[in-house]
Amino acid sequence: MSKTYKWGILGAGRIARKFANDLKYVEGARLYAVGARTADSAHEFAIEFADVKEYDSYKKLVSDPEVDAIYVATPHGFHHEHVMLCLEHGKAVLCEKAFAINTREAKEMIALAQSKKVFLMEALWTKFNPHYLKTMALIRSGKIGKVKSLHANFGFKPFEPVPQRLFDPLLGGGTLLDIGIYNVFIALSVLGRPDVIEATAELSDKGIDMQLSVLFKYKGGEQAQLFSSFYTDLSNECDICGEEGRIRMGTRFFAPDTSITYYEGKPDTAEVIPYHREQGFGYQYEARHVQECLTGGLIESPVVTWNDTIVQMEVMDEIRKLIGVSYPKDK
Amino acid sequence: MSKTYKWGILGAGRIARKFANDLKYVEGARLYAVGARTADSAHEFAIEFADVKEYDSYKKLVSDPEVDAIYVATPHGFHHEHVMLCLEHGKAVLCEKAFAINTREAKEMIALAQSKKVFLMEALWTKFNPHYLKTMALIRSGKIGKVKSLHANFGFKPFEPVPQRLFDPLLGGGTLLDIGIYNVFIALSVLGRPDVIEATAELSDKGIDMQLSVLFKYKGGEQAQLFSSFYTDLSNECDICGEEGRIRMGTRFFAPDTSITYYEGKPDTAEVIPYHREQGFGYQYEARHVQECLTGGLIESPVVTWNDTIVQMEVMDEIRKLIGVSYPKDK
Repeated sequence: MSKTYKWGILGAGRIARKFANDLKYVEGARLYAVGARTADSAHEFAIEFADVKEYDSYKKLVSDPEVDAIYVATPHGFHHEHVMLCLEHGKAVLCEKAFAINTREAKEMIALAQSKKVFLMEALWTKFNPHYLKTMALIRSGKIGKVKSLHANFGFKPFEPVPQRLFDPLLGGGTLLDIGIYNVFIALSVLGRPDVIEATAELSDKGIDMQLSVLFKYKGGEQAQLFSSFYTDLSNECDICGEEGRIRMGTRFFAPDTSITYYEGKPDTAEVIPYHREQGFGYQYEARHVQECLTGGLIESPVVTWNDTIVQMEVMDEIRKLIGVSYPKDK
Repeated sequence: MSKTYKWGILGAGRIARKFANDLKYVEGARLYAVGARTADSAHEFAIEFADVKEYDSYKKLVSDPEVDAIYVATPHGFHHEHVMLCLEHGKAVLCEKAFAINTREAKEMIALAQSKKVFLMEALWTKFNPHYLKTMALIRSGKIGKVKSLHANFGFKPFEPVPQRLFDPLLGGGTLLDIGIYNVFIALSVLGRPDVIEATAELSDKGIDMQLSVLFKYKGGEQAQLFSSFYTDLSNECDICGEEGRIRMGTRFFAPDTSITYYEGKPDTAEVIPYHREQGFGYQYEARHVQECLTGGLIESPVVTWNDTIVQMEVMDEIRKLIGVSYPKDK
């Protein structure tokens, strides 16, 4: 009989709720406990999800010997602190992106996982989603020929109550780590690590990027043009352009509810590519993968490797350096 | 009774045919003559368009005293030569874009028009098209609030027989002057002349830009992200993003058959904005304007001013300098 994994969720916000919801689609997963900053928010969460143990501190959650794996769902400014806490207590960790504020933090987190021999993975859900796997398979099949350029944008206008973490340097604010990371991720996925990076941003009074243009340049001439913004709800599409055609990942290109459209030629050649969609928000795929890793005794995912996470952090550090965004925690 | 303008068309290619077709929608316009490099191509053109005088040289066309106005429809590498020829013969000129290879050529052409007191205008048809006027009116009305960014792309994969003018430095090849000009134009229209320009291109063996990323930066923080390519048929869309919403000019954003979609918020708030469409390809609007200018005794259009043309050429010269594309005619 296969093991049932008891999941703890560290943090009780919006993303925590979505992940908690999706665990019901994962065989062998049990939503076991939640840890929040306050008893009230833990209790609210427990009311929504039946049979969930509630803890009014993260420390109590990680100290529960029954917990097998923890999904860290706090804002990225706190990931280092919370992941270290989990690992110190021997808990396997799936950590929401951005994995950390900077490469130094990420390396410390990974080093602790290595030394403690505990599983740790960045929760880059897109990489496990069917739409992403389908898109990457199409590209690998040669359907659009050699990829020459990629264009991705992700922008939204925060609505009231505007989360201050988006704008606060102390919490790693700015578009890059919050949403621009998806543009960076898809470009790295399709074209690999760029040879040259250019970046331009409009900074807020507090010195975080309110909107950001990034250009990845490759020795072969390929280019990736990325844009993220807190000013406007953008199309949030991604175009992948090859010598033999184009693939558009539609609105919310990073999420499993997007569309995939293939263009052999001009835009009127549009062909919608079907793919299998499960119920749920799409977090079940990464949760399943974590359980498979744990069952296999792995401490590192072969899909989202530690190196993948480090490279992504290094690229984001470089972008921040180019636009002059630094956080107090960088020091 | 109002005057009938006798139009001559210099060049007998694809764009010449579209313009010739659209003249039938212009009151007071008569398609009078065509001048081509060879008797054969002039004759082919005359077979297609009834009652058109055919000339087997440009010289003969401009020497016909009956011709009132000439549409220069040759590739941009020849515009300087052909426009000068027209002006020397006192013919009003509507010159297809790109107006010239570089600013120096453009200034010489304009200087001759000034000294000869003859009408000269760049055939920037988009600026007269209903979809463009509607879009600009929407922006001016404040519908999308303060514009913070603009994203435009124009790319196509040339098909056989591939026109060598696209790739030949002698003819001003490259994406910028052929199609990237529309991206530059729309950004200048919406955001004005940029304070800083960045540009990156992949160059061909012959040193022309096969694909090109351009970033316009403005003191107020606004950004325009532009892309042109000869590798892939791109979406050819333009997004104009403001603090209160977004406008997408759809496929062929530069042409009167595009769509205008307004988004108040997320992409599912899409509202298609209707506008009046006439029959034809859309070249009749600029032809009408030329006739109005001539009737009014003007030698410069108040809509596409000489300064507009010079600024656009200067910006394109700067982009070419940044990417290291120079033409023999630049020397």
